Amino acid sequence: METPDDVICDASAPCHAFIPGMSSAVPPTTPKSGKKKKAAGATVSGIDVAKDVDFARWYQQVLLKGEMIDYYDVSGCYILRPGSWEIWEILQDWFNSRIKLMGVRNCIFPLFVTEDLLNKEQNHVEGFSAEVAWVTQSGNTKLEKKIAIRPTSETIIYPYLASWIKSWRALPLRLNQWNSVVRWEFKNPQPFLRSREFYWQEGHTSHLTSQSADQEVLQILDLYSFLYRELLAIPTVPGRKTEKEKFAGADYTTTVEAYIPATGRAIQGATSHGLGKNFSKMFDIAVEAPWQDGSEERTLKTFVWQNSWAYSTRVLGVMVMVHGDDKGLVIPPRVAPTQVILVPVGITAGTPEDVKQGVLQCIDDIQKALQNDGIRTETDVREEYSPGWKFNHWELKGVPLRLEIGPKELETGLSSFARRDSGGKGSIPTPSVAAGVAELLKDIQSDMYARALAKFRDNLKIITKWADFAPAVNHKNLCLIPFCLQEDCEDKIKKLSEGTADSSTEYDARAPSMGAKSLCIPFKQPSELKDTNTPCLRDGCNRMAEKWCMFGRSY
Amino acid sequence: METPDDVICDASAPCHAFIPGMSSAVPPTTPKSGKKKKAAGATVSGIDVAKDVDFARWYQQVLLKGEMIDYYDVSGCYILRPGSWEIWEILQDWFNSRIKLMGVRNCIFPLFVTEDLLNKEQNHVEGFSAEVAWVTQSGNTKLEKKIAIRPTSETIIYPYLASWIKSWRALPLRLNQWNSVVRWEFKNPQPFLRSREFYWQEGHTSHLTSQSADQEVLQILDLYSFLYRELLAIPTVPGRKTEKEKFAGADYTTTVEAYIPATGRAIQGATSHGLGKNFSKMFDIAVEAPWQDGSEERTLKTFVWQNSWAYSTRVLGVMVMVHGDDKGLVIPPRVAPTQVILVPVGITAGTPEDVKQGVLQCIDDIQKALQNDGIRTETDVREEYSPGWKFNHWELKGVPLRLEIGPKELETGLSSFARRDSGGKGSIPTPSVAAGVAELLKDIQSDMYARALAKFRDNLKIITKWADFAPAVNHKNLCLIPFCLQEDCEDKIKKLSEGTADSSTEYDARAPSMGAKSLCIPFKQPSELKDTNTPCLRDGCNRMAEKWCMFGRSY
Repeated sequence: METPDDVICDASAPCHAFIPGMSSAVPPTTPKSGKKKKAAGATVSGIDVAKDVDFARWYQQVLLKGEMIDYYDVSGCYILRPGSWEIWEILQDWFNSRIKLMGVRNCIFPLFVTEDLLNKEQNHVEGFSAEVAWVTQSGNTKLEKKIAIRPTSETIIYPYLASWIKSWRALPLRLNQWNSVVRWEFKNPQPFLRSREFYWQEGHTSHLTSQSADQEVLQILDLYSFLYRELLAIPTVPGRKTEKEKFAGADYTTTVEAYIPATGRAIQGATSHGLGKNFSKMFDIAVEAPWQDGSEERTLKTFVWQNSWAYSTRVLGVMVMVHGDDKGLVIPPRVAPTQVILVPVGITAGTPEDVKQGVLQCIDDIQKALQNDGIRTETDVREEYSPGWKFNHWELKGVPLRLEIGPKELETGLSSFARRDSGGKGSIPTPSVAAGVAELLKDIQSDMYARALAKFRDNLKIITKWADFAPAVNHKNLCLIPFCLQEDCEDKIKKLSEGTADSSTEYDARAPSMGAKSLCIPFKQPSELKDTNTPCLRDGCNRMAEKWCMFGRSY
Repeated sequence: METPDDVICDASAPCHAFIPGMSSAVPPTTPKSGKKKKAAGATVSGIDVAKDVDFARWYQQVLLKGEMIDYYDVSGCYILRPGSWEIWEILQDWFNSRIKLMGVRNCIFPLFVTEDLLNKEQNHVEGFSAEVAWVTQSGNTKLEKKIAIRPTSETIIYPYLASWIKSWRALPLRLNQWNSVVRWEFKNPQPFLRSREFYWQEGHTSHLTSQSADQEVLQILDLYSFLYRELLAIPTVPGRKTEKEKFAGADYTTTVEAYIPATGRAIQGATSHGLGKNFSKMFDIAVEAPWQDGSEERTLKTFVWQNSWAYSTRVLGVMVMVHGDDKGLVIPPRVAPTQVILVPVGITAGTPEDVKQGVLQCIDDIQKALQNDGIRTETDVREEYSPGWKFNHWELKGVPLRLEIGPKELETGLSSFARRDSGGKGSIPTPSVAAGVAELLKDIQSDMYARALAKFRDNLKIITKWADFAPAVNHKNLCLIPFCLQEDCEDKIKKLSEGTADSSTEYDARAPSMGAKSLCIPFKQPSELKDTNTPCLRDGCNRMAEKWCMFGRSY
């Protein structure tokens, strides 16, 4: 059982760069049995359950008390409060700036779709039909035909592309929209991860050639990988979904898969699909090709190649699950709506008024200096709350850096700081506070990533014996296995790994014995398997392995 | 019949500043009967009907061919293509930056609302109930209780405010969301103006005192007025709605009213409502007041004062209707996604290759210089289209400024330009092209506003004789009349002005004989009426006038 090196995309190199050669060996995992569990209630500032004691309850509390969400009257729907929505806006701005450089243009299509259109691409609709919400009535009037609320927009957008794309010169046509979609699921809803309405961007693009389309699928996947790595400080494994797990109606699906250490489960981070000509043939999106049929010199009608790609507010849930701790949220600096909180300290009833005013003036000056450098800064000078209360309050909300200014700081000319991620404390010279803070925020960002990466690396195993598979999964690992890529084998692996967790490895009350499923075929393979006569890992499978495939329990 | 001066908000002074004193007299209107109408088909570049011949068809064509919208399979819904959505994004960015300075925070509430909650405030729900779209089914399963799609979010948001606002220290709490709402209307749908789904921002704020709430209502209205005036180059009249026309459930509604010269109709531009305590009492949103009951020194429970305010994609329709012409869209520079289009000219088959390359290089250099100065610039160097075709194409799309570069421009060191708004042509020195273009864009913006203002002024009349009212309305005027403010009188005025247009004044096939309704009570009154014993204008009304009220046909 080894840990591979290069499968996780942690460099800024394109995530699909194929890295040949086997990874270096890494010591086997030892079960983390010696870990002492904190008692419930030992945590401070409102979170009354430890992350490693009851993860599901911890997640709920941290979101509610950190003011990211609130529960809502319609089950499976959540209110995204400013604490989460402002992070989403930062991600939107960044993503918009990047896709606009690629020539993607934003637009918006209606929320509604007719039954006829929704049903047009059969494979596609089968992926959604059980979850579609239907409007059948307006006011007191029954509608003549029921109308669906979009579960995704392929069949909403594509009929119009047929009329807009009249010539190959209009290609590539790259559209994107930010909206919400509705999938009326009945499984356990969970904020950000599985909700009946969720927010996302959906890109829909059309290309003259498969090369152009394929290239874009990966360009976008690189953006998703970048978003996780550089903005959310989360490592992912980029790869391709198996046939079983691909998007309904797509030729192929690429994905970035993240890892939640606390539960040992993987989570699909974002997907970029090559739709091939499946939809363009259905919706007759075609142009006269600029090339000719060699033998007869006819112009050829050619259907366009299409892609669709999306990331959703799920990213916020992943961020919380990976970085949050027993004190509450921990927001990576690059996406934190408030990066620095300034708190006055050391002021008592006996503090002379001029010293108090000096402290407040200093806080004001620092805020201005930081804001001038583009650092998102807030102050908390409320007199009715103690410094200690404020520390807990802003820690709960995950603000990356706290600066404390008091009489001592005035005297020494140093500003005291406390890092949210590590709890690390120190001081920086007040005259150059902006530069010092910028440096600290950078450190926090990269340290957060490094910690998440280390945990992912520790729990990503190369498995070459079937007997090792279930135990590895049960110890919160994701597993790379030699795999035949066949759907029936995938089903069997899932079945065989169900219910294998015993009480000593029971860590997630909601999914104690869930089977492991295929997460992706990583672009960076530990080694080349094709034609090496390596058998598929599963006992009883007689086929040869085609690829290393990443398996694990998954959200 | 006079034209008032100060009613339209054209200065950057707060739109609610009360200007006492009568406006200066202005010559009476003469009917524009001498105007020669262009034949259909006389227009160029795709728009085959003149704006003043068939406005409704012109509007459709200019939106469709200018690639702002497309019609959609579900009637009353429209696709907002990048040509319009990118303008919306510019307006969003601007508005966000302004409200964030006021402490407003963005968030998002679900699309769905239960029947119980929707029905909670009776006056409110009556304003919407006939138009609510209901989800009754998911997949093949009938829902236990039908669920509404939000027609607006008061009853979605306010139950949660009760739990979030635990102390007066949390006030004011200012929330805003960008979303779409659904009102299943059966009247004539029209893109941007009246659609079953539309996009908007909705602000919802809570205050400790009525002063704080009232002040904000007007601050927001100032932003709306600013948005129309400075960004969309459209003058508006700010004022208060009559009781009859106010928002269902509000204490009072303020509005900015714009004017569409081509049809002589007013249009409600955006509204900011003081909700009083109507909703806070229903939803029990209360705090312990920081003041005490003087006599008994008890702490008092006090319900919060609330506001809601919104502007929608309707602003895009107003912009098109006011500025568009027979060549297509005319987009004000401040909101134009593409402000400048660069087109190579004067290149023929005989042009030496080095000259051609010089032209393309010059275009590239200019684009870079403009983009460096933050000017949104595109080039159209496609060889398969002639310069003339390109001119028409970009004029149809409303790009404010065209620069033409050819061998002549290389020689002279001057860049030729053509303004979209006026058709004005000239040249600017290429070495200082960015400064020259910035100046031109500023001129275009202010000239567009000045023209729209002149038209509004020309068609805003002070009416002091009942006999003048219907003729003025029929000649595309909005009318300021002394008015008793009573609902029954308003109804009668509407009725009495219905069907009064004869064939010579027939200008809008869709609403030939629509009655005039009250638009607003302008903040800037032509004169003080209270206690002046001025009778209400309407024949047969025996009450005294309370206020000058603006009446007119309206969208």
